[in-house]
Amino acid sequence: MQVDIGNALASVADPGVGADALDVLDDRVAIAHDRIAAGMADDDFGYASLNLPERTDAAAIESAVEPLADSDAVLTVGIGGSALGAATVSTALGPSDTTHRVLDNVDPEAVAEVLDDLPLDSTAVNAVSRSGTTAETLSNFLVVRDAMESAGVDWTDQTIVTTGEAGPLRALAEEHDLPALDVPDGVPGRFSALSAVGLVPAAIQGHDIEAVLSGGQAAMDSLSDSLYDCPAYAYGALAYALDQRGASVNAVMPYAERLEPFAEWFAQLWAESLGKDGLGQTPARALGATDQHSQLQLYRAGPRDKMVTLVRASERTDREIPETDVEDLAYLGGTGLGELLDAEFEATEASLAAAGRPNVRIELDRLDARGIGELLYAMEVACVLAGELYGIETFNQPAVEWGKNAARGLLGADGEFPEADAVAEKERLVVE
Amino acid sequence: MQVDIGNALASVADPGVGADALDVLDDRVAIAHDRIAAGMADDDFGYASLNLPERTDAAAIESAVEPLADSDAVLTVGIGGSALGAATVSTALGPSDTTHRVLDNVDPEAVAEVLDDLPLDSTAVNAVSRSGTTAETLSNFLVVRDAMESAGVDWTDQTIVTTGEAGPLRALAEEHDLPALDVPDGVPGRFSALSAVGLVPAAIQGHDIEAVLSGGQAAMDSLSDSLYDCPAYAYGALAYALDQRGASVNAVMPYAERLEPFAEWFAQLWAESLGKDGLGQTPARALGATDQHSQLQLYRAGPRDKMVTLVRASERTDREIPETDVEDLAYLGGTGLGELLDAEFEATEASLAAAGRPNVRIELDRLDARGIGELLYAMEVACVLAGELYGIETFNQPAVEWGKNAARGLLGADGEFPEADAVAEKERLVVE
Repeated sequence: MQVDIGNALASVADPGVGADALDVLDDRVAIAHDRIAAGMADDDFGYASLNLPERTDAAAIESAVEPLADSDAVLTVGIGGSALGAATVSTALGPSDTTHRVLDNVDPEAVAEVLDDLPLDSTAVNAVSRSGTTAETLSNFLVVRDAMESAGVDWTDQTIVTTGEAGPLRALAEEHDLPALDVPDGVPGRFSALSAVGLVPAAIQGHDIEAVLSGGQAAMDSLSDSLYDCPAYAYGALAYALDQRGASVNAVMPYAERLEPFAEWFAQLWAESLGKDGLGQTPARALGATDQHSQLQLYRAGPRDKMVTLVRASERTDREIPETDVEDLAYLGGTGLGELLDAEFEATEASLAAAGRPNVRIELDRLDARGIGELLYAMEVACVLAGELYGIETFNQPAVEWGKNAARGLLGADGEFPEADAVAEKERLVVE
Repeated sequence: MQVDIGNALASVADPGVGADALDVLDDRVAIAHDRIAAGMADDDFGYASLNLPERTDAAAIESAVEPLADSDAVLTVGIGGSALGAATVSTALGPSDTTHRVLDNVDPEAVAEVLDDLPLDSTAVNAVSRSGTTAETLSNFLVVRDAMESAGVDWTDQTIVTTGEAGPLRALAEEHDLPALDVPDGVPGRFSALSAVGLVPAAIQGHDIEAVLSGGQAAMDSLSDSLYDCPAYAYGALAYALDQRGASVNAVMPYAERLEPFAEWFAQLWAESLGKDGLGQTPARALGATDQHSQLQLYRAGPRDKMVTLVRASERTDREIPETDVEDLAYLGGTGLGELLDAEFEATEASLAAAGRPNVRIELDRLDARGIGELLYAMEVACVLAGELYGIETFNQPAVEWGKNAARGLLGADGEFPEADAVAEKERLVVE
């Protein structure tokens, strides 16, 4: 994996980072790296995530999913960090005879559509929740279980859970002797892609999860005390420095459909980790080349408050565009769709630079198991580095508790939820 | 449709709009409304879009698609405004026996997957490009045509085009006697959802496109010279005023899976229309309740640079959550998934307000044909109003031309493309 920060330098872009400032920043990277390395060595909360490439037992995951290997589909029931990593890994690895679907919302119509689409008697249910009490996940799980029972399917033969040491899902697994894997200790959900949380569906699909972990290991091995030697730190440090200079939005634009969930996964990683104390860069999800026809006008000519992260793989399978006798289209004939996509990538990158808009290129060798493992680990450690540079607590997410309590109160859960009262007191100014 | 701006008032939020400032803004809305009404009356470029509910001939669309009515699938080949409206309308109207797929990118692996998935002998191809020369769209069209020929399918029996008066697609339609519809004059792609550009796939699927237009008509009829009387103007004026006060990001968060493409459509509308001259609010796409577990931490505790637009339908079909004897989950049993989703919506809205973060509620009666037509028209006219208030040219997108020329030059098209030379001169600082 390469990170090219040339178009984020002050000689090209405004905002941009000057060469001297980059050297100063590199001193802070060295200090932050010491803290990260110490956190990893002590397996401290959060930092423990960065040890997953070594700690995750791929063989144990493969053994746990073995009874489900013949499934025609996998249905992941989870939300946030319990779903995005799995969707990202599974989609990045490409099509499989075993479909992967995700229930990560409680929209009744969408849930009904998914259940109608799936062959319930050959669908593996992958239920993921650390606490085993996440309202959306457990509601969906109850609905799925009920739908299977109604269809005459024994759900206990087709369910695997990934959860914490205790809680309703753990109890259920014990009661029904379900295969059960652990949400690793000390690892927040958004940092758990390289554990069972992110790897179970890919394993059921028969993908090489060992190679995903070895990609993560390669990124782990490349950690060093200088941003000039470590692509992940180069990225995290630049994102932080650009934010400090006004690039408060980070538009992440992979040029590969199979990385579309990656942009969502990144958005959670960045938003929940860094969005606190009034700080944090706002992630915006985009997709190349599609969003050149949607967002590029704004990125190039709107406020100077953005950096654009362009992601691609150097090698891919191409597909030739047929020749045509239409004069205006003749230049396309005989080239490949992939060549066109690459030309669009380079044109967009140059177009942003020509307008002085900072952008960073992340380039994988290939979009394969190793490549996605390397990319996910690199972005995680980039985020941890940025958190150190901001001086915030990267691994918590305190601002989401208020709403959870309000929702519980509205639904009449046992306990005192003063937050629910605020809902009734809403200020209204309705125009209709 | 209702718009509730109570949580965007200065009494609740920071940034927020004071009651006096709202009255001052309303005077500017009256002036802008006069300009919009005059533009509509004269069918001026761009403003003509706002006449589509009256001008679009639903019967002509239905007649053109009639030969394709028995298709098992529709494949839209388009990009940007030639794809997003169609995806938005078709998805919002819910599942159909006729699948709708969109080729709006030139990723060779993704194109291959789509073509492998589709039953080519019963797939209607919906090719959309005003100029008939859009590189991505025409490349994909050539590939699709070739795949059909290879499969022994006569593509001329199954193709419909929507295009401008002249160009390769128009010529092709004439040569092969294909059904052909017009991209309406004076209507930029991102404002064309309520024309053939947005309605053909829904029509092939058998949805009631007349009702979509009548929803647009209802929003058109509600235009008035005061934001206090017109939900669309209330939304556009508030978004503008909040941006002026620092809310440079507009996170659009529908609580309905079927509105996920709507958030993408909105992002194009907002970004390409308003992102110019260093101005423009950055749209961020989100989805409730899912993104509560991803973006909400940032929205509630990050920089005060955001407004959140919460969208839902008042009525929907619900699905009951089964009772459970697990104590921690008992409060969920017997409620509906939709009730849970509504509680999450209201909890998130209150949670943002409690943290002083501005948010606006858009509420549809139902998510049906009429509802989506009303919503799309309302957001279009809200965008036009915002453009008037910013004092920018809403209907062009000059910043995307540079990249198009660079890509053409890189691919060796005839002509002079100095932009392509800039690609080779890229500043590099590669970390690997």
